[in-house]
Amino acid sequence: MHYPEPISKLIDSFMKLPGIGPKTASRLAFHVLGMKEETVLDFAKALVNAKRNLGYCSVCGHITDQDPCSICEDTRRDRSLICVVQDPKDVIAMEKMKEFNGLYHVLHGAISPMDGIGPEDINVPDLLKRLQNEEVEEVILATNPNIEGEATAMYISRLVKPSGINVTRIAHGLPVGGDLEYADEVTLSKALEGRRQV
Amino acid sequence: MHYPEPISKLIDSFMKLPGIGPKTASRLAFHVLGMKEETVLDFAKALVNAKRNLGYCSVCGHITDQDPCSICEDTRRDRSLICVVQDPKDVIAMEKMKEFNGLYHVLHGAISPMDGIGPEDINVPDLLKRLQNEEVEEVILATNPNIEGEATAMYISRLVKPSGINVTRIAHGLPVGGDLEYADEVTLSKALEGRRQV
Repeated sequence: MHYPEPISKLIDSFMKLPGIGPKTASRLAFHVLGMKEETVLDFAKALVNAKRNLGYCSVCGHITDQDPCSICEDTRRDRSLICVVQDPKDVIAMEKMKEFNGLYHVLHGAISPMDGIGPEDINVPDLLKRLQNEEVEEVILATNPNIEGEATAMYISRLVKPSGINVTRIAHGLPVGGDLEYADEVTLSKALEGRRQV
Repeated sequence: MHYPEPISKLIDSFMKLPGIGPKTASRLAFHVLGMKEETVLDFAKALVNAKRNLGYCSVCGHITDQDPCSICEDTRRDRSLICVVQDPKDVIAMEKMKEFNGLYHVLHGAISPMDGIGPEDINVPDLLKRLQNEEVEEVILATNPNIEGEATAMYISRLVKPSGINVTRIAHGLPVGGDLEYADEVTLSKALEGRRQV
């Protein structure tokens, strides 16, 4: 044995996190030993609380500690607008922008026949139910700009369009601050295709 | 607010660890949400246990869950040999090598006048006491090969030598698997200086 048992157990726990190998795990564990006991207890509590007190909003599927979540409950938001994203982290990215005032719908994944994930495996049926009951005027498809995300956006748009609801897709193009020289062909072609009058 | 409170608290806790910024912290926190409850509880317990049940060995200063530590207690080890290191992590590095069978002495730092750390602030007085009482024949100075480590080694060797105990310093030279071309001048000069007959 190299490490006393309590620290080797802590190292094992850190190693279960993504991107943390044995060296980083041992560095983190030793750092914990040097932290104040209070801080370590807060860390332990935060772990347990996050796991126990968080769930998914029954309306939009976003991660939340109350149901419905604070976004769905917020009466100041525009209920005629639903932004469809793949992941709770995408909601957080959108919220950071502070420019979107509608509601969300989190799919928790994307259609991917290669991985055996069909429309029933992600939150699509719930979205259709919401669209029937609520007075939604526009559905913004903000799934990721990759094959699975595009396929999912395409699938949802085909399902929703017949009901007369406006379906839009977020724009593809050059990222702001990016360099034309380094853009890949597909992005560049999408940027050209999506050009607008100035 | 972007995140529900339990998760933002967990992100804050992760951000207190070295080398973990807001993005990594949020990735780790979301990963924790997807882990089994049992695993998360084990993680929380490991944190608290490591902090509460670990202390420093009263003999050598190594990190341990029993006092004296298992290395100091081990009767099969050579008690005439003490390896002086700066940090408990150095003991672990030495133990991984599986070739050193003596005892250790952990200084918990190095002499650094720039940071106001003198010999009294690190574990040097305890080392001198040990050398008086125990039948030590050789002290191996394995402090880090940088200015502070060298100064500490120099200081200890001057204190110990008069008592007739053999004082040695670990070798400086090219790391195994390294490339001569990329070695810095100081290392190269030390490697040349320390050359041995083959």
